[in-house]
Amino acid sequence: MHGLETLLYGIGLAGVAVNAASGVLEAGRKPLDLFGMVVIALAAALGGGSLRDLLLDRKVFWIADQTFLITALAAGVLTFAAARRWRLPPNLFMLPDAIGLALFTVSGTQIALAFDAPWLVASMMGVITGVFGGIVRDVLCNEIPLVFSGELYATTSWGGALLLVALLENGVTPGIAALVGGGTVLLLRLLSIRNRWALPTYSARR
Amino acid sequence: MHGLETLLYGIGLAGVAVNAASGVLEAGRKPLDLFGMVVIALAAALGGGSLRDLLLDRKVFWIADQTFLITALAAGVLTFAAARRWRLPPNLFMLPDAIGLALFTVSGTQIALAFDAPWLVASMMGVITGVFGGIVRDVLCNEIPLVFSGELYATTSWGGALLLVALLENGVTPGIAALVGGGTVLLLRLLSIRNRWALPTYSARR
Amino acid sequence: MHGLETLLYGIGLAGVAVNAASGVLEAGRKPLDLFGMVVIALAAALGGGSLRDLLLDRKVFWIADQTFLITALAAGVLTFAAARRWRLPPNLFMLPDAIGLALFTVSGTQIALAFDAPWLVASMMGVITGVFGGIVRDVLCNEIPLVFSGELYATTSWGGALLLVALLENGVTPGIAALVGGGTVLLLRLLSIRNRWALPTYSARR
Repeated sequence: MHGLETLLYGIGLAGVAVNAASGVLEAGRKPLDLFGMVVIALAAALGGGSLRDLLLDRKVFWIADQTFLITALAAGVLTFAAARRWRLPPNLFMLPDAIGLALFTVSGTQIALAFDAPWLVASMMGVITGVFGGIVRDVLCNEIPLVFSGELYATTSWGGALLLVALLENGVTPGIAALVGGGTVLLLRLLSIRNRWALPTYSARR
Repeated sequence: MHGLETLLYGIGLAGVAVNAASGVLEAGRKPLDLFGMVVIALAAALGGGSLRDLLLDRKVFWIADQTFLITALAAGVLTFAAARRWRLPPNLFMLPDAIGLALFTVSGTQIALAFDAPWLVASMMGVITGVFGGIVRDVLCNEIPLVFSGELYATTSWGGALLLVALLENGVTPGIAALVGGGTVLLLRLLSIRNRWALPTYSARR
Repeated sequence: MHGLETLLYGIGLAGVAVNAASGVLEAGRKPLDLFGMVVIALAAALGGGSLRDLLLDRKVFWIADQTFLITALAAGVLTFAAARRWRLPPNLFMLPDAIGLALFTVSGTQIALAFDAPWLVASMMGVITGVFGGIVRDVLCNEIPLVFSGELYATTSWGGALLLVALLENGVTPGIAALVGGGTVLLLRLLSIRNRWALPTYSARR
């Protein structure tokens, strides 16, 4: 079990780093300086977990352990430096981002359940952890959030979170449930990108 | 008193449902998919109460009782489905929205007073509960918040909240004070719409 | 020490007033009414400290002591009234704003350290207290935050916060450390304005 925790911690750090990096890339079209980029990297990497912790009245994770803050800062600055030197393709982080979404969904849901959140709230906390950072990133860039349209993103997160809750309710061990729930998020996300699966839009009728 | 509490609870749920529905209608001009609409519905319905609870360090109401979350979700999805089928008039919810503003103002102010907030803070919590959801909705839609201009909206909320605080300070029973305070919000709001009452604007002089 | 505390309290109130006033001036180009202006003044004046207190799980400062709220309200309304009568130059508050940045940086960092935040987190709390209000102001006005580009602003705040933490770590008395840290913020900010010092921007290479 101790090995599993170490693995989850490392995976969490990787998720933070990837989200910080993709935050910088997404914001690249805007006339921002290094500070603006760093704020957007931090918001993208830490925003979802921060809102989850505030709502659950839990100690904010990057204040309790500043390794997450340092990781996000370093990933943001390095990406900024790399993007000034080389022309990075915007979809460089598409696979890591999908992995990050799966990881954040699983960790957010499990943390909420450990705080005795009801099942629907817990699944929403998984979604919030996974997607809220990207929403803040886009609001700061003065854009309508990307996750509000396009291929399935938050929906895959919610599907995996609900599956995870259902498995745990039915006595599946946490490790297996996390693997199946997170794997579902990742698989659905990759299939959605490849097959252009999307939700119906409001204006479809007009 | 138990009957009053049940009534207030039901009215609170109605306010959440109405705000979720009007959130979907307001966001209808934007190219959002079902997820985007649901997030905006949740933000509009739960945002004000969530900020109030975070600021007061109180358990967030829809985490403590997920009936509110389910109600907001259901109202948002149903409105989305209805709006795809029929052409809903945008002012369909004008009266329910005014009622919701009155209810949120009263409940926000009373909750803050119960948490020993000073009088001015308590009245601001009533306003925050009433209008912050709509501000988040508009920021997510990449618009300047509607409540920042146009007919009196937040002002009617603040007027009713201050009246409510004053009545309670002077020994009026909570039920009567809530009725008078909330009724004042509703009446002022409807009069403002009809008579186009508005606050002065900054640029008036130019 | 009691005299110092009184001085810091008065300076904190001055910082809140200045930020509220500059919030109104910055938002002046937008078609907002008095309520919109007041919300933006409050967000600009109280937003940074509120986020700091929420993240640290500390009682929100303007709820614990509503003098700050009254000060921000009064400063916002008075500036609104003055701006409708006279043509105020937008850089009227440039010097007070720089002083406010220095004060908020110092107080935010010291409060975080008193709450046992790690050093990097504490310095970030100084920056958040100093600049987050302005970010919220600009998001509400539907603009990309001003502090994300242009002359050094947040960077001077961070520099001073890190210096403050280092001095305290090395046994310098709080009063001296605050003076040196805050003075550094102020001096760097004024030099940046005069010499147009800026951070590198992402798009420099294109």
